[in-house]
Amino acid sequence: MKASATFLLFFCHLLVVSLANSGMKRQYHPCRHLVFYFHDVVYNGQNDANATSAIVGAPQWGNLTILADKFHFGNVVVFDDPITLDNNFHSVPVGRAQGMYLYDTKYTWTAWLGFSFVFNSTQHKGTINFIGVDPLLVKTKDILVVGGTGDFFMHRGIATINTDSFEGEVYFRLRVDIKFYECW
Amino acid sequence: MKASATFLLFFCHLLVVSLANSGMKRQYHPCRHLVFYFHDVVYNGQNDANATSAIVGAPQWGNLTILADKFHFGNVVVFDDPITLDNNFHSVPVGRAQGMYLYDTKYTWTAWLGFSFVFNSTQHKGTINFIGVDPLLVKTKDILVVGGTGDFFMHRGIATINTDSFEGEVYFRLRVDIKFYECW
Amino acid sequence: MKASATFLLFFCHLLVVSLANSGMKRQYHPCRHLVFYFHDVVYNGQNDANATSAIVGAPQWGNLTILADKFHFGNVVVFDDPITLDNNFHSVPVGRAQGMYLYDTKYTWTAWLGFSFVFNSTQHKGTINFIGVDPLLVKTKDILVVGGTGDFFMHRGIATINTDSFEGEVYFRLRVDIKFYECW
Repeated sequence: MKASATFLLFFCHLLVVSLANSGMKRQYHPCRHLVFYFHDVVYNGQNDANATSAIVGAPQWGNLTILADKFHFGNVVVFDDPITLDNNFHSVPVGRAQGMYLYDTKYTWTAWLGFSFVFNSTQHKGTINFIGVDPLLVKTKDILVVGGTGDFFMHRGIATINTDSFEGEVYFRLRVDIKFYECW
Repeated sequence: MKASATFLLFFCHLLVVSLANSGMKRQYHPCRHLVFYFHDVVYNGQNDANATSAIVGAPQWGNLTILADKFHFGNVVVFDDPITLDNNFHSVPVGRAQGMYLYDTKYTWTAWLGFSFVFNSTQHKGTINFIGVDPLLVKTKDILVVGGTGDFFMHRGIATINTDSFEGEVYFRLRVDIKFYECW
Repeated sequence: MKASATFLLFFCHLLVVSLANSGMKRQYHPCRHLVFYFHDVVYNGQNDANATSAIVGAPQWGNLTILADKFHFGNVVVFDDPITLDNNFHSVPVGRAQGMYLYDTKYTWTAWLGFSFVFNSTQHKGTINFIGVDPLLVKTKDILVVGGTGDFFMHRGIATINTDSFEGEVYFRLRVDIKFYECW
């Protein structure tokens, strides 16, 4: 009988300790993982039909149809870009990437991002919301997933982004690899 | 005795399992719930005394006193709006809603929001900070409560917003139903 | 035997209760604590070599080289400021503070902040991302640390900021006392 009680104690202890560990040291592998692409076409004064974004803020030395000198420092761009599942601009969009970015360095290419993914399809409903820094010359970089709504209720995580393609200063395509570490 | 040990094992198991569940599957009913209204009066060049917000960014086809064509795409608005407990613009404000929104779609009414509620009264002290997307034609929609300070230290949650009333393109009133799911 | 079973039950209960408490009531002392300074030099049309920020949005009554009347209401400023470990502008920077602030009150000095600290040194690698309200006349105030990447992966917390020094409307220095309450 003593042996069985000791075993029981050990068993409980094991359960409790493993649970405690799972609580204190959270999981570092994503609880959910999604990959998307989005496509940005900056308005340049002549591409109104195709443009998905527009310069809406500029420093004193800039204007609203050409990204400014000095690495575009001070340009604020508002966008509503199609999200696709693959890297093809002509694929059927599964959602929209909406928000803004601003170029914020005078000596290199860096952007500060604040935007949301908006989904309203049979596959995904809700929003995923991002904030972070994009040093454009670095191949892959991490930004924050500050939270979500709908299917992504209260989720938090990290998005690894990279500029998958670009053409001049009018088109670029971003690959967004979303890893949620807090799922609800 | 064997029966009592079995019962004990079952009892421990029950405790541990229910705890594990409470840890893995967090609560989905709010730990705190608040409702506010805020009132936005956009500056139009003539209402300086009453205006609580101003257009500060516009696309090339816009200006700073009239919201732009194409669903106001590209307009950036900075605001400092009174918060009230009911839907009456003339009620005594209990705080201020401060930040910005930007219209970010060319084909429908959509805004991206980044703002904070600032309280400094006997009832509430601190800030609640929001980010998210507002598709204006959808009756109710969810945005993020990314965090708080003071009385709302480290809180996270969801705010359900709806445009409770509006007059032309100068006045609108937003109802904000805040549900915190992480309280500290 | 009954006594040992009772003791075992008590022991399990104790473990479970203490664990439950540690889960429900999170720690309120920081799990990590860092202090930095950053230095902002606003472009005024003449200080291009030194300026670390620029006005990129203004209300109808403003312009892009002088902060506007009415407590700068409506000015949007984009910045890329050096971060130092002490309050000396000439110290070797340990990172960059990048993002934007906007003045959002007509009757007093208040700014809304959205920015990131970017580190890429032997000491720190990664980003810390901030959002919040800065009532400039209040000595110290709290803003949110909404999350981090790299060394600050998924961290959340509060940053207490104060304007450590300023010169006219061109230079100011912010002290940022970062307390993380969620570390990973």
